[in-house]
Amino acid sequence: MKIYGALEAGGTKMVCSIGNENCEVLERISIPTGYPEDSIPEIINYFRSREICALGIGSFGPLDLDRKSRTYGHITSTPKPGWENYPLLPMLAEALDVPAEMDTDVNAAALAEIKMGAARGLRSCLYVTVGTGVGGGVIAEGNLVHGLVHPELGHMLLRPAEGDPTPDGFCPYHKGCLEGLAAGPAIEKRWGVSAKDLPDDHIAWKVESEYLAQMCVNAIVAFSPEKIVLGGGVMHKMHLFPMIRKRTQELLGGYVRCSMITEKIDEYIVSPGLGDNSGVTGALLLALEAEKNAR
Amino acid sequence: MKIYGALEAGGTKMVCSIGNENCEVLERISIPTGYPEDSIPEIINYFRSREICALGIGSFGPLDLDRKSRTYGHITSTPKPGWENYPLLPMLAEALDVPAEMDTDVNAAALAEIKMGAARGLRSCLYVTVGTGVGGGVIAEGNLVHGLVHPELGHMLLRPAEGDPTPDGFCPYHKGCLEGLAAGPAIEKRWGVSAKDLPDDHIAWKVESEYLAQMCVNAIVAFSPEKIVLGGGVMHKMHLFPMIRKRTQELLGGYVRCSMITEKIDEYIVSPGLGDNSGVTGALLLALEAEKNAR
Repeated sequence: MKIYGALEAGGTKMVCSIGNENCEVLERISIPTGYPEDSIPEIINYFRSREICALGIGSFGPLDLDRKSRTYGHITSTPKPGWENYPLLPMLAEALDVPAEMDTDVNAAALAEIKMGAARGLRSCLYVTVGTGVGGGVIAEGNLVHGLVHPELGHMLLRPAEGDPTPDGFCPYHKGCLEGLAAGPAIEKRWGVSAKDLPDDHIAWKVESEYLAQMCVNAIVAFSPEKIVLGGGVMHKMHLFPMIRKRTQELLGGYVRCSMITEKIDEYIVSPGLGDNSGVTGALLLALEAEKNAR
Repeated sequence: MKIYGALEAGGTKMVCSIGNENCEVLERISIPTGYPEDSIPEIINYFRSREICALGIGSFGPLDLDRKSRTYGHITSTPKPGWENYPLLPMLAEALDVPAEMDTDVNAAALAEIKMGAARGLRSCLYVTVGTGVGGGVIAEGNLVHGLVHPELGHMLLRPAEGDPTPDGFCPYHKGCLEGLAAGPAIEKRWGVSAKDLPDDHIAWKVESEYLAQMCVNAIVAFSPEKIVLGGGVMHKMHLFPMIRKRTQELLGGYVRCSMITEKIDEYIVSPGLGDNSGVTGALLLALEAEKNAR
């Protein structure tokens, strides 16, 4: 049996998994994200010992994903000490001597959702994670979207929500961007209570669903995804889904006349079909692709 | 010499052109957009008399562009009397008995700009027209983006601009959407003066460039186009370009570290390479494609 490696590279932990060709996860370990000189050897040792045939990486970004670039596969700008300009993909591919593919963590998750999850069979989808940060992965007309860099959906500018005492949000870069308004830490800063401790009927959720609905509207008018998948820790609050769906319809005001939005929105804005495994599954799919491309 | 037909179907006029295989426009006529029973026979007569071998249509929308749909090629919802659910593509293709392709007017323009204009050689671009309305066409990873329906970029929700006395805008469907805030008629309603008569140093342009810069930011974070092309009547006010570019950089706040944005933004947010001919050229390209697909 061939063993594939999957690295979910995050700001706080590096999750290393192995899986089979059906993307079933066989084993998973977690390494705290320290300096590269500490974390990378551990990652290499793990995957080497498991004799993987290919590696897929879903990473925090921003990343250089331009295959023609001299710095292809590097993490570019990040405040994370030691990781700025780090050559994550070439470093691991060379040390492990296996074919490897990399994309953003959220593009990997979008890939998993369209191949095996909630967006299966479609040609486009948006995957958004709402947790410590907010990120989005995009597939359009069957392709992962990179473009100039790659989507950074967490930094979409949004209109102030009624009832929000802090409508400028908490992003150090942008006044009024999605992540600064709707990520877990923003909820906690705004209300002085951790998101997980806020009761379901707290106005916090009205404000939260307003921002996430505005993001859905702007995604719909910008690139018209066939499915919007919302994952991440904050979205474990399942009562958000009906609120976001209703508000998305209200904000669109009947302008986009498509039954998927006007009638079947319960099937349109949904939880990940793969639960919390979208990321690892996406990284395994990238590993399968790496192996196929290397043949 | 083969003659190709191009129809630019707009809310006020139907522009019929013929061109050669290099997309050079040989002749152009304009027919007022009346009821279909008046306009369509004129269009058919014109193209029939020119013996076109294929037809490309760039149309106002929304359109049904799902090839598997029973109503493929129809205009769907529109307030324009007589045109709701009108089968524009099948009607013309059948009457003229030629292969035909249709897309939104702005997707056609985006296609022209990426094949022959300001975005030539790239794999992605955004084309936005700012005139009587605001619309956007998107190409991502080499493909025209349709997705669930097609982009409706004019209805992106934006943050109120400082100094805007009417920050909710004038769209009948949406509070605070791009078209309601930044189209020509919105400028005139806000300031009581036609856009073309406002002096270059009027605060109107600061407000206008704020909204168009927010749109650029949201497009960049949503799908990361390699080029943003801004056309349409309002963009004939060339002093808007440096204002939009500067404000886009300010709003991004250095977050997307890409030299195209941080250093070469003069080459990133640009006028159409084809001037006011993006639309007709795009329709001719669709005609060429129709003929190729029919072979």
